[in-house]
Amino acid sequence: MDIETMAGEAKRASLRISTASTDKKNTLLQTISSRIKKNSQKIAEENRKDVLLAEEMVAAGKLSKPLLERLKLSDAKIEQLSTYLEEVAALEDPVGKKQYAMKLAEGLDLERVTCPIGLIAIIFESRPEVVVQVTALSLKSGNGVILKGGTEAKNTNRVLFEIIDDVLNEFELQSTVNLVETREDVAELLKQDEFIDLIIPRGSNQFVKYIQDNSRIPVLGHSSGICHIYVDREQDKKTTIPVILDAKLDYPSACNALETLLVHEKVAEELLPDLIAELQNRGVECKGCTRTLDLAKSNQLDIKKAVELDWETEYTDLILSIKIVDTMEEAVDHINTFGSHHTDSIITVNHQAAEYFLTQVDSACVFHNSSTRFSDGYVFGLGAEVGISTNKTHSRGPVGLDGMIIYKYLLRGNGHLKGSFSGDQAMSFLHQVLPLD
Amino acid sequence: MDIETMAGEAKRASLRISTASTDKKNTLLQTISSRIKKNSQKIAEENRKDVLLAEEMVAAGKLSKPLLERLKLSDAKIEQLSTYLEEVAALEDPVGKKQYAMKLAEGLDLERVTCPIGLIAIIFESRPEVVVQVTALSLKSGNGVILKGGTEAKNTNRVLFEIIDDVLNEFELQSTVNLVETREDVAELLKQDEFIDLIIPRGSNQFVKYIQDNSRIPVLGHSSGICHIYVDREQDKKTTIPVILDAKLDYPSACNALETLLVHEKVAEELLPDLIAELQNRGVECKGCTRTLDLAKSNQLDIKKAVELDWETEYTDLILSIKIVDTMEEAVDHINTFGSHHTDSIITVNHQAAEYFLTQVDSACVFHNSSTRFSDGYVFGLGAEVGISTNKTHSRGPVGLDGMIIYKYLLRGNGHLKGSFSGDQAMSFLHQVLPLD
Repeated sequence: MDIETMAGEAKRASLRISTASTDKKNTLLQTISSRIKKNSQKIAEENRKDVLLAEEMVAAGKLSKPLLERLKLSDAKIEQLSTYLEEVAALEDPVGKKQYAMKLAEGLDLERVTCPIGLIAIIFESRPEVVVQVTALSLKSGNGVILKGGTEAKNTNRVLFEIIDDVLNEFELQSTVNLVETREDVAELLKQDEFIDLIIPRGSNQFVKYIQDNSRIPVLGHSSGICHIYVDREQDKKTTIPVILDAKLDYPSACNALETLLVHEKVAEELLPDLIAELQNRGVECKGCTRTLDLAKSNQLDIKKAVELDWETEYTDLILSIKIVDTMEEAVDHINTFGSHHTDSIITVNHQAAEYFLTQVDSACVFHNSSTRFSDGYVFGLGAEVGISTNKTHSRGPVGLDGMIIYKYLLRGNGHLKGSFSGDQAMSFLHQVLPLD
Repeated sequence: MDIETMAGEAKRASLRISTASTDKKNTLLQTISSRIKKNSQKIAEENRKDVLLAEEMVAAGKLSKPLLERLKLSDAKIEQLSTYLEEVAALEDPVGKKQYAMKLAEGLDLERVTCPIGLIAIIFESRPEVVVQVTALSLKSGNGVILKGGTEAKNTNRVLFEIIDDVLNEFELQSTVNLVETREDVAELLKQDEFIDLIIPRGSNQFVKYIQDNSRIPVLGHSSGICHIYVDREQDKKTTIPVILDAKLDYPSACNALETLLVHEKVAEELLPDLIAELQNRGVECKGCTRTLDLAKSNQLDIKKAVELDWETEYTDLILSIKIVDTMEEAVDHINTFGSHHTDSIITVNHQAAEYFLTQVDSACVFHNSSTRFSDGYVFGLGAEVGISTNKTHSRGPVGLDGMIIYKYLLRGNGHLKGSFSGDQAMSFLHQVLPLD
């Protein structure tokens, strides 16, 4: 089947799931959950095929070791997938919620009610559990979905998809979840703006930019995560250093890892020599502005010079760029100019300063005295996430079920004419807010 | 100043207005309001220049008469602009509203709070009052804005902009509202995705498509309004005919005017001959499917044949295409396939049928027993609208203040590390919902 035909059928299927009852959607998720448990051996076998191929590629230097690790589905992980589906089934149904109700005139009542977006395409890399996670969120929110996973996970993705597809067929919801497998398919997907309502790309900076540049379909996500910590003039080193180490080292390749540290000049001398020594001990390469460089040198610490490009770079590696600033305003300006509007944190014991920073920094997530690593849908209590968005429209920050929802306006009358509300004998609109239940 | 420099300055200005207090924003709007009242004679004079030029163009056949009418600012209209600013000042401030609050761990509290989108570009045609309306909505919602109005209204737009700009300077909010005047400027605007967060184009189908195809910036709006009325098998002609006439004739060039009528075969014979005769009496050209054509002929009515292209056409004129369908399912399928997902209405006395239609039709606005003409931000009680959106993300349907708003996540801790929540001694997240005030 070509991609256009598939997308057309998926769009029609998305209209069917969009009106499925909460009970039906939950039973569907529970059935997929038990089917995954039942087929865990088969899933493990297919995953083994992918892992063997990937190990050869790692040996040949064609694949990185962390990618291989993310590919592996242990028995515990397969069990977790099954549990995850149960958890999403237990979440509140985001569809059909009344957001707004108003009597416009006698007998003419308006309401705004949540509904699914429609058909969503999600493009992701290696981790095969995303197939199940995204399916769970899409079905629960009443959306159709087209999945494109990483080639390294081909066999695992396929067996997971087949289990899901079988269950959908039993529920007469065929074509609601779809799998495409090649790069050429992705290029075709980007043209299906008639059928696909939203694309969520999860991958490298360049990959997300490619998607944004090559499709008219709205794109939800982020291209880079250049996260900052700013240490203000009133800080406590015992708090500051562990937070910076956590933000840089807890998972350096994550999008919410620290990339640039900004330090108020008043505390640079007290903080930076100890901090840089500790970072270097832990294998982090430090780069600094001229003032940081001088300070390091006078403390017998050897660091590299940061150039303008460093402020705009997401290293996703054991590298940290450091800049000394004169004022908080300079720090905020630096973040708003060079950052990627993802996650930025201030460290200070002064609450007024913290509130200024929280208000002024134009990012999806702005933190006080906390590691940037907390920027995550599960951590935020959203149940799960389809991605993290730096968009300024629709969804921003970690995106859970409510990022897969939009609304429609319903108006119920009994023969009302617009013409009655203009001219000499014009009626007036009442605009009387109605209770939501 | 070139457009890139202007957009950069406007972006910085948008950060300033984004944190302005409700009082300051309201005083700002009230000051602009009184300044417009004070300068009404000057505004009228500048408008007179535009009208004189436009009258010459109408005489030369280069401009349509309705466009000329929309250009005119009577004294009453200028007075209305002043009142309008007062009304927007009186609306609730949409910024800084807590949407969600959760204790993630002891001393680690998350909240989601509304904030402005940032910098919005709005491109519109002739009507100069849009300058004031859009300025009011942008400032109230804390956004910066770049306006591009119609060339025909150049002098009026400029004088209104200068009044606004003077007041902004007095409030030290210069560059928050900006005016560009040429087509070349629009082409440059579309490239400023680094600074502009949202484009709202208001104009022809082709114009909106051009914007969508030529920018990476998210676009809010609609390209066409192919609105349907479906008359189901149980209807009352005394209700049906007036609603159809209102939807077609109240304002035929509006995007929410009726373009296609679908009629259940059970009622076609009873309804269509009288309806077509009445429509033709009022100057509406009717086009029909084969069955409609036959029915018309056997009633001595002469109508044209509708071809597939008719179902996909927004006439914005005194033309109506008519199709007889076998079932409601066929009607819904026709609307979801050929419609523009703008506004569609069912006429029936059967409430169960109505609810089916309201649920199944995938449009921004779905109505029962009401004219499609009610699809409008003022009518919907949104206070005002910046446009009507057929997007499936962010805002759908008539878009008021809340379509100019997004949110950010704020997290307040006291040195919390992500690493504390994994490993052997892992802490657990509490995810305890907190009250919103």
